[in-house]
Amino acid sequence: MSTELVLAERRGAVLVLTLNRPDRLNAWNDELEDRYFALLDEAEADPDVRAVVVTGAGRGFCAGADMDALASIGTSEVVEVPVRPRPRHRPLMFCKPLIAAINGAAAGLGLVEALYCDQRFATPDAKLTTSFARRGLIAEYGIAWLLPRLVGQSRALDLLMSARVVRGEEALRMGLVDRVVDADALLDTAVAYAEDLAAHCSPTSMSIIKRQVLQALDSDIRSALTEAEAEMVDSFQRPDVTEGVASYLEGRAPSFPGVSVP
Amino acid sequence: MSTELVLAERRGAVLVLTLNRPDRLNAWNDELEDRYFALLDEAEADPDVRAVVVTGAGRGFCAGADMDALASIGTSEVVEVPVRPRPRHRPLMFCKPLIAAINGAAAGLGLVEALYCDQRFATPDAKLTTSFARRGLIAEYGIAWLLPRLVGQSRALDLLMSARVVRGEEALRMGLVDRVVDADALLDTAVAYAEDLAAHCSPTSMSIIKRQVLQALDSDIRSALTEAEAEMVDSFQRPDVTEGVASYLEGRAPSFPGVSVP
Amino acid sequence: MSTELVLAERRGAVLVLTLNRPDRLNAWNDELEDRYFALLDEAEADPDVRAVVVTGAGRGFCAGADMDALASIGTSEVVEVPVRPRPRHRPLMFCKPLIAAINGAAAGLGLVEALYCDQRFATPDAKLTTSFARRGLIAEYGIAWLLPRLVGQSRALDLLMSARVVRGEEALRMGLVDRVVDADALLDTAVAYAEDLAAHCSPTSMSIIKRQVLQALDSDIRSALTEAEAEMVDSFQRPDVTEGVASYLEGRAPSFPGVSVP
Repeated sequence: MSTELVLAERRGAVLVLTLNRPDRLNAWNDELEDRYFALLDEAEADPDVRAVVVTGAGRGFCAGADMDALASIGTSEVVEVPVRPRPRHRPLMFCKPLIAAINGAAAGLGLVEALYCDQRFATPDAKLTTSFARRGLIAEYGIAWLLPRLVGQSRALDLLMSARVVRGEEALRMGLVDRVVDADALLDTAVAYAEDLAAHCSPTSMSIIKRQVLQALDSDIRSALTEAEAEMVDSFQRPDVTEGVASYLEGRAPSFPGVSVP
Repeated sequence: MSTELVLAERRGAVLVLTLNRPDRLNAWNDELEDRYFALLDEAEADPDVRAVVVTGAGRGFCAGADMDALASIGTSEVVEVPVRPRPRHRPLMFCKPLIAAINGAAAGLGLVEALYCDQRFATPDAKLTTSFARRGLIAEYGIAWLLPRLVGQSRALDLLMSARVVRGEEALRMGLVDRVVDADALLDTAVAYAEDLAAHCSPTSMSIIKRQVLQALDSDIRSALTEAEAEMVDSFQRPDVTEGVASYLEGRAPSFPGVSVP
Repeated sequence: MSTELVLAERRGAVLVLTLNRPDRLNAWNDELEDRYFALLDEAEADPDVRAVVVTGAGRGFCAGADMDALASIGTSEVVEVPVRPRPRHRPLMFCKPLIAAINGAAAGLGLVEALYCDQRFATPDAKLTTSFARRGLIAEYGIAWLLPRLVGQSRALDLLMSARVVRGEEALRMGLVDRVVDADALLDTAVAYAEDLAAHCSPTSMSIIKRQVLQALDSDIRSALTEAEAEMVDSFQRPDVTEGVASYLEGRAPSFPGVSVP
């Protein structure tokens, strides 16, 4: 059944999505992607979902593109790259916090999917690798743009040219992951971080901030300043700022409205 | 008296500016900003001032926009954002070295002001937080552009989405501050760094280099190379290079002319 | 003899180039540059060369522009900047992996040359400094663009404004170098890293990935995604992907064709 390729479980305001092809180390294929993206669409439309954690079933996070598909590429006459209903970098545009809980191998496209998330929590034993250069491939799906902005130019070149495997602690030192957590506490820690965002931060603020950061990576400072000025004036019109200031002055938890993208 | 909102003290070639509303944790308001920016204008015009250190009076560095002003926003019909005589990011354009000595809380706009400086020295107990998402606000005054260029994309998203408080040592590991110094040595250490710049580095070189770095963050490498070539040829015409090379070959301290911006 | 200004030695698929003016700490001059760039041209044309390591003879890596040339600048009437046959940033455009083994002082232009490399291995005692601000010079040859992308904005400003010397371990913490290795193992470690690339990674993949990363530093994410899609489709047509996948599935070392740029 297609729906079982990605498991969905609500924990309060946090949605946990689990890539679920454990016998293939959750290798990526079109059906899994369709299901994952559909669940992201649903989460974006549901105002009660305030943050999402994505992890993998079994020993791995995601081993990358399914090798069966890759193995057939060299033998086919024509390479058809079908137009997908959603762009492949769909998770990067997700308007709510998206946290990766990297429980094992994240390779190739599997690593790219982790990099599309806002934060990465990983186990000490997690194996992260770009893979591409060792398979005769190139820096796929925007990773040549993403990696230098996460870890700097030379670490990005090391990871992409060598395609070597880095473990949790080295990944943390490089800035490739944000936290290292033992396997038995990984998911709970990622969910707790997401719950903190859900409890204390304005969903509208977070969605605008995510867009601002993504845009600012590609814009100059004058544009960023101008856009921030306009967004600030808009923010003054919303109930969130009244509630945010009032709850602070009253020393209580805030009660912000949720966000729903149709 | 307006002039006392920011204290100014000369220590040799270094000007120390102290935000001085200690009973409000030096919360920002228009009068404080006017005074701070006017003192930066004066420092830029004075060739004897070669570097500036900014710190806070009392327990905090700057608690951000004054909460009284914020509390009134939600209740007013019309939000007027007056045109300021100087752009709010004025300190980012300051042509001499500007060092923040973060002696305590730096929150919201207070953190932005610290980020506008070239270097950040902080105490172990300093509390740094973006604040915005917890008040229903957005990434204000260019911080969505600045933070990823200082700490990388995912640390920027963590700091902006969660608005959590980070202390000195974590801020150092993230690259959010450049040095952690105990409270009783903080200001002296920041001033000593500034004095070293004043004693050994060409003020003209530093002002051009600051502009080059800011421009290069928004330009492509071809433009940066072309501009560096032109700046290099110009530099060969100035007395600084003669003095810089001669003092080096003679094993003595250099004597560079100061910089004055009218 | 001009050819001895840079020594060339093959170690299997790795070419080791040694800047060879040890009595001048390998200070840069036009003749040395001509020889270094000519050897890079040859290495790019030779499909059997799969990676290059560059180091310095004697105590230093490269002390920067020869001080004799600089000392004459202040006294000459006209500064002529001759049009060079190759752009000065030629090594940044080198299409094969280029690793710096920084065995001692890397100052000014010497540091820039190290930054043009893809990876930097340094000894604990290596002295790295931008030098420029202490000689009345500016951020030369694109270093104002490169440094913030390697170490972030504030570390770049620290290194460029202060022109202070950092040693190996601090350079590692800043991200200015990628590894610190004791002097007696430095070159072997750098060559071993290069040999690993030569043995396991597709030369065509690495050359495309280097170009992708350099372009992506100056492009927006949409362009990067579009370009990656086109490069991916192209990669599916090459023998490297067939060999990369087959060798992986068969559990053997890959045998990729070399790259030759005429």
